[in-house]
Amino acid sequence: MDINANPQPRRTKKIVVGAVAAAALAAGTFGAVSASAAAPAAKAPAAPRADVGDRDLTHSTHLTVTAATRAATAALDAARKENQRVSVAVVDRNGNTVVTLRGDGAGPQSYASAERKAYTAVSWNAPTSVLAGRLAQAPQLKDIPGTLFLAGGAPVQAQGAPIAGIGVAGAPSGDLDEKFAQAGVAALGK
Amino acid sequence: MDINANPQPRRTKKIVVGAVAAAALAAGTFGAVSASAAAPAAKAPAAPRADVGDRDLTHSTHLTVTAATRAATAALDAARKENQRVSVAVVDRNGNTVVTLRGDGAGPQSYASAERKAYTAVSWNAPTSVLAGRLAQAPQLKDIPGTLFLAGGAPVQAQGAPIAGIGVAGAPSGDLDEKFAQAGVAALGK
Amino acid sequence: MDINANPQPRRTKKIVVGAVAAAALAAGTFGAVSASAAAPAAKAPAAPRADVGDRDLTHSTHLTVTAATRAATAALDAARKENQRVSVAVVDRNGNTVVTLRGDGAGPQSYASAERKAYTAVSWNAPTSVLAGRLAQAPQLKDIPGTLFLAGGAPVQAQGAPIAGIGVAGAPSGDLDEKFAQAGVAALGK
Amino acid sequence: MDINANPQPRRTKKIVVGAVAAAALAAGTFGAVSASAAAPAAKAPAAPRADVGDRDLTHSTHLTVTAATRAATAALDAARKENQRVSVAVVDRNGNTVVTLRGDGAGPQSYASAERKAYTAVSWNAPTSVLAGRLAQAPQLKDIPGTLFLAGGAPVQAQGAPIAGIGVAGAPSGDLDEKFAQAGVAALGK
Amino acid sequence: MDINANPQPRRTKKIVVGAVAAAALAAGTFGAVSASAAAPAAKAPAAPRADVGDRDLTHSTHLTVTAATRAATAALDAARKENQRVSVAVVDRNGNTVVTLRGDGAGPQSYASAERKAYTAVSWNAPTSVLAGRLAQAPQLKDIPGTLFLAGGAPVQAQGAPIAGIGVAGAPSGDLDEKFAQAGVAALGK
Amino acid sequence: MDINANPQPRRTKKIVVGAVAAAALAAGTFGAVSASAAAPAAKAPAAPRADVGDRDLTHSTHLTVTAATRAATAALDAARKENQRVSVAVVDRNGNTVVTLRGDGAGPQSYASAERKAYTAVSWNAPTSVLAGRLAQAPQLKDIPGTLFLAGGAPVQAQGAPIAGIGVAGAPSGDLDEKFAQAGVAALGK
Amino acid sequence: MDINANPQPRRTKKIVVGAVAAAALAAGTFGAVSASAAAPAAKAPAAPRADVGDRDLTHSTHLTVTAATRAATAALDAARKENQRVSVAVVDRNGNTVVTLRGDGAGPQSYASAERKAYTAVSWNAPTSVLAGRLAQAPQLKDIPGTLFLAGGAPVQAQGAPIAGIGVAGAPSGDLDEKFAQAGVAALGK
Amino acid sequence: MDINANPQPRRTKKIVVGAVAAAALAAGTFGAVSASAAAPAAKAPAAPRADVGDRDLTHSTHLTVTAATRAATAALDAARKENQRVSVAVVDRNGNTVVTLRGDGAGPQSYASAERKAYTAVSWNAPTSVLAGRLAQAPQLKDIPGTLFLAGGAPVQAQGAPIAGIGVAGAPSGDLDEKFAQAGVAALGK
Repeated sequence: MDINANPQPRRTKKIVVGAVAAAALAAGTFGAVSASAAAPAAKAPAAPRADVGDRDLTHSTHLTVTAATRAATAALDAARKENQRVSVAVVDRNGNTVVTLRGDGAGPQSYASAERKAYTAVSWNAPTSVLAGRLAQAPQLKDIPGTLFLAGGAPVQAQGAPIAGIGVAGAPSGDLDEKFAQAGVAALGK
Repeated sequence: MDINANPQPRRTKKIVVGAVAAAALAAGTFGAVSASAAAPAAKAPAAPRADVGDRDLTHSTHLTVTAATRAATAALDAARKENQRVSVAVVDRNGNTVVTLRGDGAGPQSYASAERKAYTAVSWNAPTSVLAGRLAQAPQLKDIPGTLFLAGGAPVQAQGAPIAGIGVAGAPSGDLDEKFAQAGVAALGK
Repeated sequence: MDINANPQPRRTKKIVVGAVAAAALAAGTFGAVSASAAAPAAKAPAAPRADVGDRDLTHSTHLTVTAATRAATAALDAARKENQRVSVAVVDRNGNTVVTLRGDGAGPQSYASAERKAYTAVSWNAPTSVLAGRLAQAPQLKDIPGTLFLAGGAPVQAQGAPIAGIGVAGAPSGDLDEKFAQAGVAALGK
Repeated sequence: MDINANPQPRRTKKIVVGAVAAAALAAGTFGAVSASAAAPAAKAPAAPRADVGDRDLTHSTHLTVTAATRAATAALDAARKENQRVSVAVVDRNGNTVVTLRGDGAGPQSYASAERKAYTAVSWNAPTSVLAGRLAQAPQLKDIPGTLFLAGGAPVQAQGAPIAGIGVAGAPSGDLDEKFAQAGVAALGK
Repeated sequence: MDINANPQPRRTKKIVVGAVAAAALAAGTFGAVSASAAAPAAKAPAAPRADVGDRDLTHSTHLTVTAATRAATAALDAARKENQRVSVAVVDRNGNTVVTLRGDGAGPQSYASAERKAYTAVSWNAPTSVLAGRLAQAPQLKDIPGTLFLAGGAPVQAQGAPIAGIGVAGAPSGDLDEKFAQAGVAALGK
Repeated sequence: MDINANPQPRRTKKIVVGAVAAAALAAGTFGAVSASAAAPAAKAPAAPRADVGDRDLTHSTHLTVTAATRAATAALDAARKENQRVSVAVVDRNGNTVVTLRGDGAGPQSYASAERKAYTAVSWNAPTSVLAGRLAQAPQLKDIPGTLFLAGGAPVQAQGAPIAGIGVAGAPSGDLDEKFAQAGVAALGK
Repeated sequence: MDINANPQPRRTKKIVVGAVAAAALAAGTFGAVSASAAAPAAKAPAAPRADVGDRDLTHSTHLTVTAATRAATAALDAARKENQRVSVAVVDRNGNTVVTLRGDGAGPQSYASAERKAYTAVSWNAPTSVLAGRLAQAPQLKDIPGTLFLAGGAPVQAQGAPIAGIGVAGAPSGDLDEKFAQAGVAALGK
Repeated sequence: MDINANPQPRRTKKIVVGAVAAAALAAGTFGAVSASAAAPAAKAPAAPRADVGDRDLTHSTHLTVTAATRAATAALDAARKENQRVSVAVVDRNGNTVVTLRGDGAGPQSYASAERKAYTAVSWNAPTSVLAGRLAQAPQLKDIPGTLFLAGGAPVQAQGAPIAGIGVAGAPSGDLDEKFAQAGVAALGK
């Protein structure tokens, strides 16, 4: 859709000012019922441009949704093999949830718990079992919005840097939850 | 875990009072770090019971998380084939989100939109394109919390009754979004 | 309404794709003032169908609203007999509140407390008095959204599996609250 | 509990300053596990008092929780007789929800809708079907937090003044929802 | 407005069903700009009535807004005399805030703190300094939504029952805050 | 408390770096129960200072809480004289609520409505009756968080600039609400 | 725009009643697409005025947005020099956020953490490292909405009074975070 | 900090499983007061690794915080030159706010408005003035959470794809707001 199909999207040299898109959009057509939440692919033939040097750009690395789904499914499968009912979430380094899976029969609290464990793991680039231990020294860490310092979250790293967190909740112990989360991470290492 | 493995869970005859579980739990053991959010599998050997007749029970039907993931992935694949970047959500008849997939490069607004479209479709058992048309007569329907009356949501039914909704958002038109959502529904019909 | 009256709703063999409902709805009529938030009962005479095998379906067990109301009322009556003013809530295993009763003269904090105690009890399938004790080992459990680790919540089980939680709040001690909650559970055991 | 059992609670002449309650509470005892969210019934033998004249007090009238439950159940029964699946809520004139009943098989959107319809009906002392019509002239009324201008809410009055609202949601039309809400009101008129 | 001017509003004998009000309202007139959020005073000449016995009604006692304002102002004045900058709130027994005063130069956190202290004091009918001490035994009390267990909240009672709470925040110590709150309570005792 | 008693607080020449306050605070003493949410008045005898030129400072004008209370009370009195039950709020130019008064018997929706009307009036420096008319051209203005475009809000100005808004809600028409709000403004003009 | 350009805005003598602005606004013109959220500068030629004495006004001191941006940038630069990735926020004494900067590569939790540290520092006029220590005596301070008691927040003062807080989050230790925040404060002392 | 300093972060070949980080963290040291919200830079000498192929990774492009600050400041300066008081926000393609600047004297509603306009512009890759026009056909677009369809938001693009949005609010017309936002975009084109 509105992300250019250019195969090297990261070697951007220019930034087109918004006025261009406005021109393009004004030419778009929308049916009364089908109009939706996306910009048309129409391109403005000739419009003022403002170029931006590479120095103004930075990049972040993410799991593809396909990889994240594979990891989440692997975590769920690992739990199933031990007859545990859990929910699973994958959160990226920007703090956005990429995948959630509410396991059959998992407790209602497991869904939000899994998401927060994943968020916590990717925020500090560490398993939540380790982070929970750190609270002995700085208990207020757990007051940061969106976090949950319970075992069951594991970070996913690219060259040592965090790119995602996988969170699992619903098993009888946090150790089990985290074992399943690590199974999710392992599904990426191939 | 705490859902009994009984193969006919719906022909329940008895309800064990909570005191039993308390006894069971009191016998549980939790390590300092690994204690987690779930009940142990321990069973109380002998405890007072209170039986509940079947007349007090009802049942609801859900997609398994495996089926829901298959449907969501199918919707995402259908979008990909048309070079559209979307997010997908599956919501069950109880209003709980079962699966979310944030598509690569999809707009930030697509995630919440997909979830709300799915919620809307399962609530009224109709595609959101149809429901959007209904607003001409009752515009306040869209003020109900959690809903979004934009094309892109499709209901999943079992014998005519709604059991889930699939929502897609991020394509340039709601018609496209809904086409992909229907591809997700179709992946269940096999 | 939109749940089929079929007497064996759980032996579903087919899932009708959403397009069918769309056709049905398009034929519906809505008056300007009376249009409301529900699908019409109209049935589409002939429409494409997509069948879903049973393997894609799962089921959850609930208290009927009648049974849940009976339990909540019993809890309230038990409190009244001891001149205690409390509020009561019943939450199902999906985390949805089924019944709430704000008792005459109960403190304003009792309503939300009762709901959270019920949520907590059904999430971990244990009385909240037991769960509160577990915090000594894993204090972060109480940071999970929607929970409250105070005595007064009791689980309702079917064959050992949790199907609901009953929460009571407002009495001078949690032991009293939980005694009343257990009276609610007991009202189901007949 | 902490509401005095005095049979004429409305002819209050005195207000005891908080320091008294503090003394009473300081004498209370709480077990480690059972401590709960309520003040003990202990009375301070002798404490400074500050009297308040009646001119500083006003009173509000409420349905008892027993009456509200009766009304809500009557609304639910009326819907059942017509094979409609709905949720019901009763909200008092202070805006607090007194009773909620999530009907078996009712759509997930019905619970919050019922509560908001009840809130709207008691706020303006009119059926929501009437209030919805008023939006033609003042459409921003519907932007007030907590309201929903859809048919299905009915006010309960004492001598013409609103004391509660009953809201119903989930039937195929707002007219039906409101018919059931009125059945709830009628259950009080005996 | 819509509360009847009857001088004995608490000896209600009848409840008029909502349909009456609907008739009355339908006769109302609203200008396009001035239409607002309230029911007209018009009375329906002849309408079906449903009477409700007194057994269905209960009553709650409140401070008048005039008295509550007097108390809040007294608390603010007491703080001013000691050169302290604070905010003050009065919350009634239904949990609704009646008066708030943000003191000149008071810290931004003082406003919400005052409101929560008042809520806490009226919920448990005790000064928050006393309630804070109770956390040693039941630390989870402070997880109840809307509460704050810091000194500075004082209950207002009528015949021993709580009818309101006054909360003060912003002084260098909770003891000072509570002293000012008690000055607010004292302003009612005349 | 922590605002210096200097009589010309606006002619500030210097900004003391935070490290100073840290030193001061470290010297403070807090009793276990009475510790509260405020900095002690202790002054650091000798500490590094960093001066800030006036060019880094700006100032905003507010109503004193005493004046705001007078205005809100005047609005309430004006309503009372016409037998209308309303709530009143005063919001300052920073968007913070300074005073709220929940009128006796006012509808539950009036409290939040009054606050939002006040917020809207001070944001655009115009009565909300005027602003509501402007929606004909830009209906999305009303989607800005915290606003309400219903008559009943009036701006308070100092030399033409907005310094506060007064909002009233609960009367049968917005014209009445706004008349009472203007009475509140008039109470300041003396 | 709607703040008068008067060079001595703090020596206000008069308050013009809202009706004046209404007249002015009624004369304004708004194009269908460009209408926006602000009052026009038009002045009413002759309108009733109500004057307010200076006794009704008070003033608060703020950092200019330019100064606040300079301070935030300085904090970010200080972190960069030590190869730390952080986010920075500046909050004023009214509790409003003035500037936020999400640092490149900073963890997702750092943004909200920085804002809350800044809010906490300006609320109590002390570095959050000092305030965190104070929790040993009054742990409930951290339950006040919007606060975070972790090192990394520093107050900005004018003549000893707090006018803003600078918060930094994301470095491996709170000491580092606070060092960077102090660098931000130091950038103002020139 | 925890993002590797590798100059080609996008050519990642391996993903280190979370267990590695755990080992590293376990070796970390935290002082009681200074412990904070970040992972230490320690590297585990020898740990199991799981490699992930490039096919599992994707990348997103962002403005650096330095560039975003430059753009926001340029927008603010443009407004200042026309004596307009506005707030400015920059939101990235993931929906996260990167920079906010609350302009001196800008209305309280401008801060959230600017943020939402920026979010809307980057979501649909078009100026909000254009998007507002699109509501004529699909009015429900504006019900998507976080959006605001008022002129004043402009997209920032890299090779035609959206990477950020700049939002401005507070000027008397949306046309002016958007002109200033475009000035911010133009500051990037150099």
